[in-house]
Amino acid sequence: MAIQYIFEILGTVVFAISGALAADHNSGKDWFGVTFVGFITAIGGGSLRDMLLGSYPLVWVNDVNFIYAIITGILIMRFSYNSLDKYRRELSLFDTMGIALFTVLGTEKTIELGFHPVIAAIMGMFSAVMGGVIRDTLTNETPVIFRKEIYATACLAGAILFLILYSFDVHRTLNFIISGALIITIRLLAVYYKWSIPKFK
Amino acid sequence: MAIQYIFEILGTVVFAISGALAADHNSGKDWFGVTFVGFITAIGGGSLRDMLLGSYPLVWVNDVNFIYAIITGILIMRFSYNSLDKYRRELSLFDTMGIALFTVLGTEKTIELGFHPVIAAIMGMFSAVMGGVIRDTLTNETPVIFRKEIYATACLAGAILFLILYSFDVHRTLNFIISGALIITIRLLAVYYKWSIPKFK
Amino acid sequence: MAIQYIFEILGTVVFAISGALAADHNSGKDWFGVTFVGFITAIGGGSLRDMLLGSYPLVWVNDVNFIYAIITGILIMRFSYNSLDKYRRELSLFDTMGIALFTVLGTEKTIELGFHPVIAAIMGMFSAVMGGVIRDTLTNETPVIFRKEIYATACLAGAILFLILYSFDVHRTLNFIISGALIITIRLLAVYYKWSIPKFK
Repeated sequence: MAIQYIFEILGTVVFAISGALAADHNSGKDWFGVTFVGFITAIGGGSLRDMLLGSYPLVWVNDVNFIYAIITGILIMRFSYNSLDKYRRELSLFDTMGIALFTVLGTEKTIELGFHPVIAAIMGMFSAVMGGVIRDTLTNETPVIFRKEIYATACLAGAILFLILYSFDVHRTLNFIISGALIITIRLLAVYYKWSIPKFK
Repeated sequence: MAIQYIFEILGTVVFAISGALAADHNSGKDWFGVTFVGFITAIGGGSLRDMLLGSYPLVWVNDVNFIYAIITGILIMRFSYNSLDKYRRELSLFDTMGIALFTVLGTEKTIELGFHPVIAAIMGMFSAVMGGVIRDTLTNETPVIFRKEIYATACLAGAILFLILYSFDVHRTLNFIISGALIITIRLLAVYYKWSIPKFK
Repeated sequence: MAIQYIFEILGTVVFAISGALAADHNSGKDWFGVTFVGFITAIGGGSLRDMLLGSYPLVWVNDVNFIYAIITGILIMRFSYNSLDKYRRELSLFDTMGIALFTVLGTEKTIELGFHPVIAAIMGMFSAVMGGVIRDTLTNETPVIFRKEIYATACLAGAILFLILYSFDVHRTLNFIISGALIITIRLLAVYYKWSIPKFK
């Protein structure tokens, strides 16, 4: 449990920062608006996953440390603002780390609850990207999954790798690291080489 | 159970096609984007209904055949694209069939769970239209229920007819056909004669 | 129970009016569209709260009087339209009363269910503002919480006051009145003096 908990808290801080960055960049929101968007980004994906699975209580509703993690993320972001702003491009690494963490955690949670691996992969991907989708919908942006170079599909690939290694009883910490690394690697290469998914038509 | 299951799978294929059509028409999305929008359109309404009712597990979360039905719909749409595109107008029939199927299924499910007929009618209508509403919100379109000639109200009319016939113990297959036919008929006439609901003011 | 029930029904009527006003003002919607938006505004915040808490059945799903309350609000709004329209500015008082009522009711419900006070304050605020946020998202408006002078933060302040008085066992009716009055007062002063939250950056 320990490692999962640390990862969840860490992913929450990271997602709150990434959400707050997006909120402030778009429209110069006030403190409440930025905090609200950071909050939604951090808890949106996991909350939707748990509500779809009927897995109650929701993690953050039952453990106020997740709220403190979000506030920590917002404060980190505010008080290192001048230095953060110079590295906006580099900062998307926060988002990439966040989606990697949330994908493997969401996939594992779903498969451990006894659902089909196809559902586990979808829920892993949802955990990672739906917070950002809700954030973008609220701020009237095109949702991140329709915009970016390979993004949600990197999460799907990592979720599938996790499930394969899981079926071979690979140790979970090792599996977290390998599958998370795959997501981060695909995403970084996709940004660098501007990889994209073929058009449908 | 058999007929309901066939209808649910059929409605899911049909809604995935209608969602994928809408997604691709709007903005030339990639394979992932089109599949995602088809997916949301197909499972959105039923998922919202079940989450509002607290009826767990959600149908598609517990039965991976619904995922395969969605993928089938996406592939059908892709590989008959050139022929489909000529008949875009005619294709809205898919959407009409989808809303008719989902309305009667959603209404029956809710009344069978013991809720009030007024709630059953609302939930039947939600099952049919909310997938499209979520789709339109994600793709920054005006939600279909605010745009179209008589649309959600046709679903409400069909749901009410279903509940009346249900109270008279009409055989469910017959009830499905009659109530579904009412929705399709109202919708087709509304499109043909450009019927609309009076303005509020 | 009596006073809470009366307040809930009253808040529902008031929110349906405020939602219908917003819907009609924006785009001259038809009867269905206005009713739908009034409905979503009235039930959205409480439904989201209960779905996040896993508190089933949802209030309005189990008690059709809430549906009648919404229809009443829509009809009141329609048949006093000419007089209402002259007092649009004054009418935002309806919205203010609605958020005050829903904040204290949502906060109390959450704390009584045994959740942490921090979660209770968040859920009280969500009960009040998320119906409006969903309404604005559906109608492609900037969500109210990003637009207005002090709005959601007034709800948070009222929720925190409620929780403090609750911890001192202040009588609930008195607590409802004092905490609700704080929200209304802050909101009215904020509109009058154009108070706003400092920018994040």
